[in-house]
Amino acid sequence: MSGNTFGTLFRITTWGESHGPAVGVVIDGCPAGIALGEADIQKELDRRRPGQSDITTPRKEEDMAEILSGVFSGKTTGAPISIMVSNRDVDSSKYEELRSTPRPGHADLTYELKYGFRDWRGGGRSSARETAGRVAAGAVAKKVLAIHGIEILGHVIELGGIRAKSANIEDIRENTEKNPVRCADTDASLKMYSMIQAARSEGDSVGGVVEIISPGVPAGVGEPVFDKLSAELARGLMSIGAVKGVEIGAGFSSAAMRGSQMNDPIVVRGGKPGMLTNNAGGILGGISTGEPIVCRIAVKPTPSISKEQCTVDLGKMEEAKIKIRGRHDPSIPPRIVPVAEAMVALVLVDMMMRGGFIKTSAVG
Amino acid sequence: MSGNTFGTLFRITTWGESHGPAVGVVIDGCPAGIALGEADIQKELDRRRPGQSDITTPRKEEDMAEILSGVFSGKTTGAPISIMVSNRDVDSSKYEELRSTPRPGHADLTYELKYGFRDWRGGGRSSARETAGRVAAGAVAKKVLAIHGIEILGHVIELGGIRAKSANIEDIRENTEKNPVRCADTDASLKMYSMIQAARSEGDSVGGVVEIISPGVPAGVGEPVFDKLSAELARGLMSIGAVKGVEIGAGFSSAAMRGSQMNDPIVVRGGKPGMLTNNAGGILGGISTGEPIVCRIAVKPTPSISKEQCTVDLGKMEEAKIKIRGRHDPSIPPRIVPVAEAMVALVLVDMMMRGGFIKTSAVG
Amino acid sequence: MSGNTFGTLFRITTWGESHGPAVGVVIDGCPAGIALGEADIQKELDRRRPGQSDITTPRKEEDMAEILSGVFSGKTTGAPISIMVSNRDVDSSKYEELRSTPRPGHADLTYELKYGFRDWRGGGRSSARETAGRVAAGAVAKKVLAIHGIEILGHVIELGGIRAKSANIEDIRENTEKNPVRCADTDASLKMYSMIQAARSEGDSVGGVVEIISPGVPAGVGEPVFDKLSAELARGLMSIGAVKGVEIGAGFSSAAMRGSQMNDPIVVRGGKPGMLTNNAGGILGGISTGEPIVCRIAVKPTPSISKEQCTVDLGKMEEAKIKIRGRHDPSIPPRIVPVAEAMVALVLVDMMMRGGFIKTSAVG
Amino acid sequence: MSGNTFGTLFRITTWGESHGPAVGVVIDGCPAGIALGEADIQKELDRRRPGQSDITTPRKEEDMAEILSGVFSGKTTGAPISIMVSNRDVDSSKYEELRSTPRPGHADLTYELKYGFRDWRGGGRSSARETAGRVAAGAVAKKVLAIHGIEILGHVIELGGIRAKSANIEDIRENTEKNPVRCADTDASLKMYSMIQAARSEGDSVGGVVEIISPGVPAGVGEPVFDKLSAELARGLMSIGAVKGVEIGAGFSSAAMRGSQMNDPIVVRGGKPGMLTNNAGGILGGISTGEPIVCRIAVKPTPSISKEQCTVDLGKMEEAKIKIRGRHDPSIPPRIVPVAEAMVALVLVDMMMRGGFIKTSAVG
Repeated sequence: MSGNTFGTLFRITTWGESHGPAVGVVIDGCPAGIALGEADIQKELDRRRPGQSDITTPRKEEDMAEILSGVFSGKTTGAPISIMVSNRDVDSSKYEELRSTPRPGHADLTYELKYGFRDWRGGGRSSARETAGRVAAGAVAKKVLAIHGIEILGHVIELGGIRAKSANIEDIRENTEKNPVRCADTDASLKMYSMIQAARSEGDSVGGVVEIISPGVPAGVGEPVFDKLSAELARGLMSIGAVKGVEIGAGFSSAAMRGSQMNDPIVVRGGKPGMLTNNAGGILGGISTGEPIVCRIAVKPTPSISKEQCTVDLGKMEEAKIKIRGRHDPSIPPRIVPVAEAMVALVLVDMMMRGGFIKTSAVG
Repeated sequence: MSGNTFGTLFRITTWGESHGPAVGVVIDGCPAGIALGEADIQKELDRRRPGQSDITTPRKEEDMAEILSGVFSGKTTGAPISIMVSNRDVDSSKYEELRSTPRPGHADLTYELKYGFRDWRGGGRSSARETAGRVAAGAVAKKVLAIHGIEILGHVIELGGIRAKSANIEDIRENTEKNPVRCADTDASLKMYSMIQAARSEGDSVGGVVEIISPGVPAGVGEPVFDKLSAELARGLMSIGAVKGVEIGAGFSSAAMRGSQMNDPIVVRGGKPGMLTNNAGGILGGISTGEPIVCRIAVKPTPSISKEQCTVDLGKMEEAKIKIRGRHDPSIPPRIVPVAEAMVALVLVDMMMRGGFIKTSAVG
Repeated sequence: MSGNTFGTLFRITTWGESHGPAVGVVIDGCPAGIALGEADIQKELDRRRPGQSDITTPRKEEDMAEILSGVFSGKTTGAPISIMVSNRDVDSSKYEELRSTPRPGHADLTYELKYGFRDWRGGGRSSARETAGRVAAGAVAKKVLAIHGIEILGHVIELGGIRAKSANIEDIRENTEKNPVRCADTDASLKMYSMIQAARSEGDSVGGVVEIISPGVPAGVGEPVFDKLSAELARGLMSIGAVKGVEIGAGFSSAAMRGSQMNDPIVVRGGKPGMLTNNAGGILGGISTGEPIVCRIAVKPTPSISKEQCTVDLGKMEEAKIKIRGRHDPSIPPRIVPVAEAMVALVLVDMMMRGGFIKTSAVG
Repeated sequence: MSGNTFGTLFRITTWGESHGPAVGVVIDGCPAGIALGEADIQKELDRRRPGQSDITTPRKEEDMAEILSGVFSGKTTGAPISIMVSNRDVDSSKYEELRSTPRPGHADLTYELKYGFRDWRGGGRSSARETAGRVAAGAVAKKVLAIHGIEILGHVIELGGIRAKSANIEDIRENTEKNPVRCADTDASLKMYSMIQAARSEGDSVGGVVEIISPGVPAGVGEPVFDKLSAELARGLMSIGAVKGVEIGAGFSSAAMRGSQMNDPIVVRGGKPGMLTNNAGGILGGISTGEPIVCRIAVKPTPSISKEQCTVDLGKMEEAKIKIRGRHDPSIPPRIVPVAEAMVALVLVDMMMRGGFIKTSAVG
């Protein structure tokens, strides 16, 4: 199991390199009978697309999704859905000089050590371009979840040290997509935008924190003991390049709390048990409580910077200097939002299928 | 896949409830020919054992490990290793009153909603007693890793808001097990100890942060794209009850860094590429760099507290008050250290087997 | 994945050696709320038990099942069910002389070559005693299937070259368990019995064919493309020691048929589509048709015979003669019947859960 | 796990429908550094290609393989290999009349019952066209195996009741590909050819038996207990449409043998233990012995025949007659040979990787 597959019942396999002919994904296990067209996928790919604003990489990719299988008469058939996105604006020239000098903070060195050689063009398999497949599959997962009244809302809550005000679900739904930073707090988004521009002008980059909230998940999703919903979310989110931390609910701040603060009081709401607060982030004992699922990820600053850095010439095995050219995002959080949403959607649909909440076919 | 199995090639399945006859684990995929005896397992179980100090639960369990299969003439045979730990000091009387009133912060409510009924005795399957199986299996994993020169060192770095000074590997190795808090900073450990006693006397509990460092892991461990070493560690650690966050290397603090700070400069060390710093926590692109693997987990305060809390009587579906009796740890971090180490060891041995670093049998 | 686990959603892991302290199984993924007691398991273990008649091995094992977890108040909880069967009548003395001379037809040589050494006592892990765990788990699977009106009927249809008359489901249900050969044709069973006694008296053994029929399986069970119901049955049945062939429906005889003979005509029956014949064995395109599932397995003659055979002394690497002492069944088919039934039951319950026919919990 | 993925470490996922834009496969886990080009894949696809002789379907497909990822500078990189084969000669007109009348012996009815509707064009996902992905992936597996000196040789040994003479490995290697029937016995191949033509002229079809021999597999491949090499082969082979039986070595004929006949005597050969005969088919206790692996499959007659058959009109739920038009093979065995070889190759490479015989990367 080489690691390019994600999920148990709703399972995706991504493939493709940054500068190869195409990238893509095969989705196996999608329930039959879901209305699905290329527009559903395109909508999400456009949110991940390079060149969507002046704070993203200028690489020009239309990222057109082609569905090659698994859909008939506008509906999923239960067969694997193969989706392909061609690479068009490929320019490997800037990468030739990086063939034997691994970029700090990138996977160049570790791929080289692991495999003995690597596709050095544009980062090859370890490029963020791989996430196009995740986002395409996530779009399908979101279609399935929407039928069950579940929404996935990602937004930037911290960037370059600037923290957004806390936002409720309506704010996030309304404001996030209105600014290129994808921050629900408009004031903060302006400061973040300036911060990104400043970092870029200095040949540097900035990190941030993204939050993903999922209202509508019913109670009972998640499997004890190892396959807790929280564990699956942590795995899915940590598998995104540049993510260095994952937390659920109160997360790291729970470490400084008392039990009497942390425990969410249980109350009766609408004739059913509910929680007065949501420090648990919607998950107790690895199983959803019925409250919104709340995750947060720490996103490191883009490793590709034009400032001079120390590296090693692997051919001569001697130290060398490197200044990275090429086209890069000065800050990853705005474009990681749809990727993180995709991973949360993929985990939720898979765990809901495992728990029997979503039927896979007409029988059963 | 109901979720009680962990790992791909070195895979464990735990079983058992808090107040049933026993808990245990079956390890499948352990390489043949590893010297193994019950003492190897006992050593780790003793670190997890209840009643080991006056800041842990007073439940008295000897937690004697019995190896029932897979070992012949003092060596593993390659067959499944079944390990059983009997439950002896079982007292379900304190739990009868909790049958219809779920404890806040616990899995009582979510198990009840998911399965329609539950083994309410001592938390049943969701009890921390389940971790005995993880620790027993982790002891076997550590034996395998030790052959490859890999160590797993866990220690408490924050508790009840008190932060320990940063410690190097020698400090951790020397000092951690000398105090009941398992903190490498002796001064901080005394303050943490007092903090725990204070919280307990108030009928409350405290959370903390545990760090696990693994020196000796060779470069090249971990599989792209979804099965990144970081992703597998996140999943394994987040699957421990009470863990609400996981970070690797600089983790959440990387969100506020510039790329030029975060990127670890690559240098030549001993004729091979190395890193001058370790913000990456030993992992780039999901693959180990050869530097120590560094993980941190956020541990919430023990949900079982004797202070009065709000809950719901599920029978009458009306709000109720609850004061939890029974025997509980006032703070989880000291006892979670061996559990977190076990999970890291299990992930590492599995990923090293997947990467071909560890042979499974005499052939191949 | 070392290979001691079977199933995807209803998944079992067996452990234990022939002459170790015990053998057992952990069942993960059993739906919650199924009535289950030790008697349910004992009933099936008694059918597999050594010493049940004078044509089985005289090893005396009571094979008492102990349920160690996963059952509360007489019902399954959804947590792993751990079942243990102690080994009592262990006599390793006859095996000492086999330490360096592998028995022809056995796994001795291949285990030795694979692992570099082996537990030689009574066949160790490769002993048929391992099937006690399968049968115990199969008993649980049968309980689940019975709720859905599904029966699993195994019977011997050929032994030592003697073929039974074809039998209908009522015959099989009525007659099979009335004779020690487990053949629904009473006349043939007597001849088979004599054949077994004759082979034994010559220091030899005989093989046979076992058929397993499962009426009541609804249409729609099985997943295309690789996880066809037929493929999963083939894997499960071929994983039983001594099985050298598996066929579904017309099986090998279909190779000599014309399409016009083989194709089962589709008709209307009770307002639904049905088949006039069942050459398909209840499976088309890997998915159940609603007709009874029909499998057959070829069982080789017991490899342990007292006739002199050629082998090799692995220590001296020179040819040697061997006469096998110890206690053995002169013919495996009668005792393999409950094992084959167990494997079919395990496959069916797993595939029905994968297809959504069986709910795993109260939700969903 | 919807079932379109096969393998554990060398794992393939196929996708595509008979009359969609393309079919394909993603291979995950192929070792890095294997020389691979489109010609390697084309060679095998040409053996499976429709229209290759006058006893196959006249559908005209060039079946050109495109490699879309995972290969760089003529070598595999360790990343997923995505291979696509476009569908060109698509004619769905003959299938419109079959929309509500399922063809006997086909998956039409079971897909309809399972999913509630189906892609009826050319059999959709259940078409034999799906095997193009298997054969493409098998070509890659064969390249890997060839490095280890392992060959996969498939040939027809029985067709329409005609049995070929037994053939040794040299015969099979020399003669099989010289006749359109793929039978190593030239005389028998002529009779089989006439038999196929006769059946076709009667609007009927014939079945057969295919044998696959794999010399060169080292001892020690295969995992006890459930993941026996024999069990994995059985699963892989039974997952091919039209296969109704699988046997290993002596197979079903072992049922009528005595132990003294069946057991292969162990001898010293070249300083190592070997077998004098190979009734075991190269597998004992689920682990390879070092002798050639021998499998046989029963292939049912093509269900698509032009003779009138009974079926049901699902719309009106009343009985109907059907005569199948369209383009079909009158006998499957000749074209199933490369598919069966592919499945054996896929199982072997996966099990050899699981056993550590094949390295996945430069490290480890």
